[in-house]
Amino acid sequence: MNNNKDRIKLAHGSGGGMMADLIQDVILRYLDAPELANLDDAAELVIPHNRIAFSTDTFVVKPIFFPGGDIGSLAVSGTVNDILMKGARPLFLSLGLVLEEGFLIHDLRTILQSIKQACDYAGVKVVTGDTKVVGKGDLDGICINTSGIGSILPGVDVSGSYAKTGDSVIVSGDIGAHGIAVMVKRNGLHLKGDIKSDAKPLTGEVLPLLERYADSIHVLRDPTRGGVAATLNEIADSSGVRIYLDESAIPVNDWVKSVCELLGFDPLYLPCEGRFLVFVDSSASVEVMSFMRDTCGCHDVSVIGTVEGESSGEVLLRTISGGVRILDMPVGELLPRIC
Amino acid sequence: MNNNKDRIKLAHGSGGGMMADLIQDVILRYLDAPELANLDDAAELVIPHNRIAFSTDTFVVKPIFFPGGDIGSLAVSGTVNDILMKGARPLFLSLGLVLEEGFLIHDLRTILQSIKQACDYAGVKVVTGDTKVVGKGDLDGICINTSGIGSILPGVDVSGSYAKTGDSVIVSGDIGAHGIAVMVKRNGLHLKGDIKSDAKPLTGEVLPLLERYADSIHVLRDPTRGGVAATLNEIADSSGVRIYLDESAIPVNDWVKSVCELLGFDPLYLPCEGRFLVFVDSSASVEVMSFMRDTCGCHDVSVIGTVEGESSGEVLLRTISGGVRILDMPVGELLPRIC
Repeated sequence: MNNNKDRIKLAHGSGGGMMADLIQDVILRYLDAPELANLDDAAELVIPHNRIAFSTDTFVVKPIFFPGGDIGSLAVSGTVNDILMKGARPLFLSLGLVLEEGFLIHDLRTILQSIKQACDYAGVKVVTGDTKVVGKGDLDGICINTSGIGSILPGVDVSGSYAKTGDSVIVSGDIGAHGIAVMVKRNGLHLKGDIKSDAKPLTGEVLPLLERYADSIHVLRDPTRGGVAATLNEIADSSGVRIYLDESAIPVNDWVKSVCELLGFDPLYLPCEGRFLVFVDSSASVEVMSFMRDTCGCHDVSVIGTVEGESSGEVLLRTISGGVRILDMPVGELLPRIC
Repeated sequence: MNNNKDRIKLAHGSGGGMMADLIQDVILRYLDAPELANLDDAAELVIPHNRIAFSTDTFVVKPIFFPGGDIGSLAVSGTVNDILMKGARPLFLSLGLVLEEGFLIHDLRTILQSIKQACDYAGVKVVTGDTKVVGKGDLDGICINTSGIGSILPGVDVSGSYAKTGDSVIVSGDIGAHGIAVMVKRNGLHLKGDIKSDAKPLTGEVLPLLERYADSIHVLRDPTRGGVAATLNEIADSSGVRIYLDESAIPVNDWVKSVCELLGFDPLYLPCEGRFLVFVDSSASVEVMSFMRDTCGCHDVSVIGTVEGESSGEVLLRTISGGVRILDMPVGELLPRIC
């Protein structure tokens, strides 16, 4: 039984005394960067190089706690990974909280603790923030925006529009676990197996790869909303190329396969929050894959496709049964509020 | 009468084809920075100096359209002004939209048009973004996060903790209009007079001032949530000083006064979104005030107080009737969802 005092009130967003107490007693207990602690309207930061990556994401995942993570760890992972995908070392995050009146302060503490842990793991810090409170019924609990700044590594130049004929397409691990973990929890399914989201900051996987193989890497992308299928379609479209995907090479773990069969999902359309796609010169692909497995900890890394010529942007799937079909962009909405 | 096709659907947030259409046909029609158009996960930017300001704010104002602005122009002004208050030239914004299923696409277009106009006025551009859609009932229409990056002007060093004994406190114009404009609209009041929010980007007011008087300015702050009272209390607290405020010098326009009397508000606690407070050496205050009036367009600029000694952080008000009282932080919530 939670008392009224354990819940967020409208006055926590007022700019007054109760808001100051919430910030001091709750938020700054977990987030302790000196830039944040002086509570100026903006943080003052020093950037090592003048070429930066800047990204933003708002997180509305439902439920907010799911196997393998919560909205806090997800909010850090999502923005950190977007910065990494631009070839940059993530440095600084902002944190914008919107809370519904009545939200449990205990849950907020749990989420802030997750944010802190994910930041420590990713090597970033929250340097500026904002907290708003809306009335009961005006929001489903909480939403979190994180924006982030990273320093682009010298010599690195990657973009979704740089895929080239002859590139190999590598995925860093098994796909779809984030989508399934959230859906299983949302639908109250009780299944055997170690079902958990793949969500995590990819700093440890991506930075060593970039430092070693900057010249060979053309595209980095994390297959979040819309999964591998949507992400590859975007890349094919931006780069004006045709991508062939080999279904048999795509790593999918057993419980993701089982739940997909049960619920009628295709793993290629499920979001990942701790996986990434790399397009490299095919001459470097074996070496890059070994490096990713042995040095970056990507145990299930796999070459899953190739870029085979220019086009208006097509993704073709060689199926396990031997046929070839077009892998389209998803059209409707399979998985609302998955991130 | 609006058709179903004129409204946001869950699939607009899916990462699939409908989302790509919304971004291309609606969002990019108004926001056309090349950094945004390539739709990578993060924008690649070049910063002129390596000392930057970074800020974030989420906007939940209700109603979303109010006299003098809307949630879009407010979202730009709020973050641009927070960057200016750190002594920085605002350069880049991110835009995080969260939309409720059923939100009118026509309203989204109006808001995007406001965002574009405010960005042009402020000299900034939206370089990265994110759009999420949540189910009907999970959000009250729309919320917008903007985060921003600015380049701190050489030689400028301002902070809420730099107020010094002997400083003069200047306000750039009449206070409280944003709070009253939103409340009047929210409550459906029909009043005479040109009632409108003061919300605007302060680039044109603040940058010339900083370029000319960097050495004399110690604190810059915009009195948003909690108004002048909360902002001065924060500064007094951070700087460990006592601030005396002269009530008779505080500019409040007639219709703000009238509505305050009608509804029982104190203008000192009302948020402004287009005003700022400056703490300067008292020896420079007359010259700075003239410059603000004549060059920066601050017609109602006024010296409203002084810093008179160290303390644990007090704000004292010399009232019009001649008494002195403590001006406290606001405690409860007068004005939920005001920004």
